[in-house]
Amino acid sequence: MKTIDGFRFAGVAAGIKKKAGARDVAMAVCDAPATAAAVFTTNQVCAAPVRVSRDHVKGGRARGVIVNAGNANACTGVKGLNDARAMASLAARGVGAKTREMLVASTGVIGAALPMDRVTAGIDAATAALSPDGFDDFAEAILTTDRTPKRATATVAGTSILACAKGAGMIAPSMATTLAFVFTDAMITPVQLRQFLKRAADASFNRAIVDGDQSTNDSIFVLASGRSGSPLKGNALNEFGAALEEVLYSLAVALVADGEGAEHVVTIRVEGARSSADALKVARTIATSPLVKTAFFGKDPNWGRILGAAGRAGVKLDPDKLTLDLEDVPLVRKGGGVMTAEREQAAHEIMKRPSYGLTVGLGLGKASDQVVTCDLGHAYVSCNADYRS
Amino acid sequence: MKTIDGFRFAGVAAGIKKKAGARDVAMAVCDAPATAAAVFTTNQVCAAPVRVSRDHVKGGRARGVIVNAGNANACTGVKGLNDARAMASLAARGVGAKTREMLVASTGVIGAALPMDRVTAGIDAATAALSPDGFDDFAEAILTTDRTPKRATATVAGTSILACAKGAGMIAPSMATTLAFVFTDAMITPVQLRQFLKRAADASFNRAIVDGDQSTNDSIFVLASGRSGSPLKGNALNEFGAALEEVLYSLAVALVADGEGAEHVVTIRVEGARSSADALKVARTIATSPLVKTAFFGKDPNWGRILGAAGRAGVKLDPDKLTLDLEDVPLVRKGGGVMTAEREQAAHEIMKRPSYGLTVGLGLGKASDQVVTCDLGHAYVSCNADYRS
Repeated sequence: MKTIDGFRFAGVAAGIKKKAGARDVAMAVCDAPATAAAVFTTNQVCAAPVRVSRDHVKGGRARGVIVNAGNANACTGVKGLNDARAMASLAARGVGAKTREMLVASTGVIGAALPMDRVTAGIDAATAALSPDGFDDFAEAILTTDRTPKRATATVAGTSILACAKGAGMIAPSMATTLAFVFTDAMITPVQLRQFLKRAADASFNRAIVDGDQSTNDSIFVLASGRSGSPLKGNALNEFGAALEEVLYSLAVALVADGEGAEHVVTIRVEGARSSADALKVARTIATSPLVKTAFFGKDPNWGRILGAAGRAGVKLDPDKLTLDLEDVPLVRKGGGVMTAEREQAAHEIMKRPSYGLTVGLGLGKASDQVVTCDLGHAYVSCNADYRS
Repeated sequence: MKTIDGFRFAGVAAGIKKKAGARDVAMAVCDAPATAAAVFTTNQVCAAPVRVSRDHVKGGRARGVIVNAGNANACTGVKGLNDARAMASLAARGVGAKTREMLVASTGVIGAALPMDRVTAGIDAATAALSPDGFDDFAEAILTTDRTPKRATATVAGTSILACAKGAGMIAPSMATTLAFVFTDAMITPVQLRQFLKRAADASFNRAIVDGDQSTNDSIFVLASGRSGSPLKGNALNEFGAALEEVLYSLAVALVADGEGAEHVVTIRVEGARSSADALKVARTIATSPLVKTAFFGKDPNWGRILGAAGRAGVKLDPDKLTLDLEDVPLVRKGGGVMTAEREQAAHEIMKRPSYGLTVGLGLGKASDQVVTCDLGHAYVSCNADYRS
């Protein structure tokens, strides 16, 4: 699936990225006002396009999105805000929409002013290039240092979903933004779409952890053209919600896998918690521990570090009840290691896989939750330490 | 200064560490019961010696400490607790003290049972070797993978302080413990000593961040022999407290500098906060951000990452008021970069230094606080990723 009824897409090269000829302006437009919802970074130091889009999406309707890569338009003061609004205005004018009907996103270097002459020319070129078949160009133009575009689709309850994302492939510094765009022909109300997006984002991107940092620009947008023709309700509505969650989850996992030279995608599941909030807190603390993540890189079943991370998560534990399993290999029972030479070897072999799962049992209740993370290796350091010049 | 009136020290090789002939059992004993205080890791997954020492130090009196390196006696269940108690008992018997009068510490690999035959022989040998001049041996025997011993001294208000620490030089995995031992001839009450230690630890070790992980074994002990002869009071008491803080601070900085292949010690100061708790929260979030720490490694004045970390610290900020200075070079004013080619170059030069300071201004109030951290480079990954076998 490469098209969604009601939408036209474009991705053009405007010279904003350093690499000559690289697509860096992406645009998507709905033929008529679409139902729209978005979630944004909770970082208080947020970029100008986040401020503008947060305002524009309030009414739950939008005609489209205009995106640039190569410059995040973050920490750019009043000029940045004006530039973000100008992007919306230019894109709107080209398709006969109102400025407030265009949502804006940017990703790239923080703290540099947008080269508005190039951005303007790019928006004009993107407007001229808009096509129902332009999705691949769109998905390419939003990338910064990702190894590959990330796309996901779903067909459910008579509706289609087409989505793409760019991730935290932070090969150059200051490029840690997560952006995702979801287009669907579903007929749905703004309130429903907002609820489903919030829930889906929470279950996917908010549980995908590369390094625990949170960008100034992170945004997820959903636009629904309503062209499927019949309003979603009852079971169909819930199926759509589940499909949206699956689409975002697969994008989030692709993002972790492409993150910062990651070699392993690791699912950290915490069971037996008193509440799912507790489970999530423990899972997140394990998933962001540099000591745990370097052990993943080293393929080292270093269960002491995992227990140590659990113990400082701020959740009341009984250390003597902790269990730990790596896939089907038991590593810890009753808070103590149950390693044998065989299990050590089996664990080491599992940790060579590109993806695997860890399960921590707290033994306190019935609640569980999980997050997805990756290892921390030399590529991460190289990606993020190179001097920008 | 290498001695403290009233104390004898020893450090002997007992074969607990892998390296043959390396000192790995340390013992310090006061001729008479000393005033004692200690602070311990808040990690709920804490080692057996922490549980035992927490109990033994309650009364505020102790005769000494017995320490082994090479094995953390953590996550070792009931046997671990028995072993830790046996260490106290063996050391106590050798010097004619009660078991409860001996404090215990261990550092090294997590999850392996202590080799009690070697530990027992080591404690016997240490008891025999006790000497007023044994402090250097003691300071050496507590090390795991530290590059060098860390020692600090002070003379104040007619009292002397002699201290040593071992740090987070995590060249082998599971060896992240911070241990510090302070010996003084001060005459002071248990309540006073506990208060001063708490305050000094909070201002020093609790503000020294290597990777934000927290060990199962972290402990700081202070023993005061009272041999100075006159009780501390008034100004002298406060001077002693300040000296204790200085001693611990210098040990904490030495520990960060020796941490995990660190090349730069960076002081992160946050000013203009509404409360010092807010300032500390922002400083800690910046100091533990992997993106910020890799930028330190890359000598890259990447102010966007620092602002981004500040923005997710969970403290209410006004992004448009943020300022950032690297030593005396202004990088950010009113939330936006004020970089010039000259400043970029000056900043890059400063970041080549082994130690430097960053100041973040929030522009909201008058409170401030600071933490000390280090860079995250390839040596950290190599240190922590090598498979244990």
